Amino acid sequence: MPVKRMQQLGEVRSVIREQFDYGMKRKQEIGEDKVFDFSIGNPSVPPPPEVTAELVRLLTEADPLSLHGYTPATGDRAVREAVAAQINAVHGTAFKAENLYMTVGAAASLSAVLSALVDREEEVVLLAPYFPEYTVFVQTAGGVPVVVPCCEADFQPDFEKLAESITEKTRAIIINSPNNPSGAVLSEDTLRKIAALLTEKSAKYGKTIYLISDEPYRELVYDGVTVPFVTPFYPATVVCYSYSKSLSLPGERIGYVLVPSEMPDFAAVYAAVCGAGRALGYVCAPSLFQKILPYCGTLTADRAVYARNRELLYNSLTAMGYTAVRPDGAFYLFVKAMEEDANAFCEKARKHELLLVPSDDFGIKGYVRIAYCVDTALIERALPAFEALAKEYQHG
Amino acid sequence: MPVKRMQQLGEVRSVIREQFDYGMKRKQEIGEDKVFDFSIGNPSVPPPPEVTAELVRLLTEADPLSLHGYTPATGDRAVREAVAAQINAVHGTAFKAENLYMTVGAAASLSAVLSALVDREEEVVLLAPYFPEYTVFVQTAGGVPVVVPCCEADFQPDFEKLAESITEKTRAIIINSPNNPSGAVLSEDTLRKIAALLTEKSAKYGKTIYLISDEPYRELVYDGVTVPFVTPFYPATVVCYSYSKSLSLPGERIGYVLVPSEMPDFAAVYAAVCGAGRALGYVCAPSLFQKILPYCGTLTADRAVYARNRELLYNSLTAMGYTAVRPDGAFYLFVKAMEEDANAFCEKARKHELLLVPSDDFGIKGYVRIAYCVDTALIERALPAFEALAKEYQHG
Repeated sequence: MPVKRMQQLGEVRSVIREQFDYGMKRKQEIGEDKVFDFSIGNPSVPPPPEVTAELVRLLTEADPLSLHGYTPATGDRAVREAVAAQINAVHGTAFKAENLYMTVGAAASLSAVLSALVDREEEVVLLAPYFPEYTVFVQTAGGVPVVVPCCEADFQPDFEKLAESITEKTRAIIINSPNNPSGAVLSEDTLRKIAALLTEKSAKYGKTIYLISDEPYRELVYDGVTVPFVTPFYPATVVCYSYSKSLSLPGERIGYVLVPSEMPDFAAVYAAVCGAGRALGYVCAPSLFQKILPYCGTLTADRAVYARNRELLYNSLTAMGYTAVRPDGAFYLFVKAMEEDANAFCEKARKHELLLVPSDDFGIKGYVRIAYCVDTALIERALPAFEALAKEYQHG
Repeated sequence: MPVKRMQQLGEVRSVIREQFDYGMKRKQEIGEDKVFDFSIGNPSVPPPPEVTAELVRLLTEADPLSLHGYTPATGDRAVREAVAAQINAVHGTAFKAENLYMTVGAAASLSAVLSALVDREEEVVLLAPYFPEYTVFVQTAGGVPVVVPCCEADFQPDFEKLAESITEKTRAIIINSPNNPSGAVLSEDTLRKIAALLTEKSAKYGKTIYLISDEPYRELVYDGVTVPFVTPFYPATVVCYSYSKSLSLPGERIGYVLVPSEMPDFAAVYAAVCGAGRALGYVCAPSLFQKILPYCGTLTADRAVYARNRELLYNSLTAMGYTAVRPDGAFYLFVKAMEEDANAFCEKARKHELLLVPSDDFGIKGYVRIAYCVDTALIERALPAFEALAKEYQHG
């Protein structure tokens, strides 16, 4: 028999994937346009046209041996130089190629960073709601996830609870801004407080407590909101990035880990990230998709659709009586379930052909996640179903 | 401070990488054409032109959202069906999409399979010479590598030593045919004996001992040699494959794991491979490169160059007094060092600008690996250096 933990991870589908698979089946039964699938965070706008153009240009003009050959494990040097310059231009930082390690997407970034930093039995603090796979990656590294709920009024951290959760066993805390599933963006004030708290606790316990900043939605913000860049607030920060959402390339698996030079024991930490990538079987990030980044790394897929969907969905649902914090970023609306049990609420929603994701796996009860990375027309068609669902509770 | 093991894995470069990096530097010092770099197994012939054509066709004709979108974690279904049909057509097997799990290359295949099958403290037998990263992946899974030397006459297993090495702690054995670094192909007779031995030992210890078959060089064979397909010999076999060498796409990271339905506890083993992929942060294999496989999966880059290089190098070196087993496959010549210490021999070779890889990291002493995936002209230019090196020993 194989290893039990792995078998279970392979057998138990995530609740997101389960809703998505149900949706595929249901569409075949009653018709594509009659199912309102808001389950999955798959970008609904194509990559910028420049991405396709650059891929074709490289394929037709570049030397194919070097285009598709192994890059260094850390990533192609010219690519890392270009990406560092791109980050610096936007955020006023001074990173170099040496601060970057190119990865096979955000999950690989997180997985390598957690295995690099977290030793057996060490604790990693997750701010709920959080992306469910965090617990899987923490456990693969041998660590123990510790869940701390955010304030439900604005989904910023509850600093009292956060302070209590950090002990001598704490090795790291993961933040995710803009947040999946809440859409919340951590403010400068919040980052300053987190930095102060981690500085104090690191001194108290005589060890560095790392801040792991997972930022696949960094560019997806609305109404002129800006996402503060984290490393200037706290030097022991590692940034995990992915181009999946910004360039609409989720299946191509391309991202990076950024370790600032100000990081305590910088050389050791950077080496450990490389070593963890090697230990997990990551030889290099896909070469062709690395090589489009010098030209395409700062582009974004058309965010206007997401912005429009967010307005439509937030305004319509709140008018119907639903409660939600207006999301500043990402492409999710996190809505209070109309009964205590979010799973039961999602079951009732299914009867209206609405596929929502209950919040339990995000580490918090009583909410549903609505992914609005969909055609606007789907939202328009779904509004009567949302209305009927709300009425069921209002009249009940 | 980060995790010690990961830091060390990041700091200690492989000896292959070290020779390669030295070569890059040396070329800048004395000129590209004066350094004879045989260190790295990077294909030297470009991908088949159909690969580029199919990539461009998909980019210009397919819907970009679905082309670059997430595929299922196991891989795109149509791709898996096509790959199964391709394997069946060549090997007379009867695999289906359900037997395949698409991966981010051979290292990811091995890493997922070992984490799926090997529990803490369980032993994995490696037949020396073996690819050095096997020990890293076994240790990541928590297992213990056990090294068993092959017969040096033909690099087939030494069955007496192999039988002794299998104990109640043994969980798996890794084979690699054609072999990196020896070029040996395991014969049908050898596979039959391995199967008989593992069947006997599995019965004796009341557990399945898995056979992990790492086959990135499966198509690279010469003189009409065929590589027997392993699963019909022993049902508890997992095949790890990569298109890196056959399609000359090593940087793009595309491969698969094949679990035959005859595998004991098939469903559990397949689930565990998927679960291990998930645990290690592999979301899906790169989508675009999955999607060229229905059209390109059975093509191979032009092997004529490798065949010519093998002839030239083997004939020339043996005529000079070097000892080597004639390789049947892959693109390496494994040559006896002319003194006991292969590292010292490689040092002397460097004085002649010859960059060879000492065999110690392959689990065997006293040999050097010569990667002949290079321009034939490089071999021709290097022959006088090989001659001078041999003379040093013959006159000494």
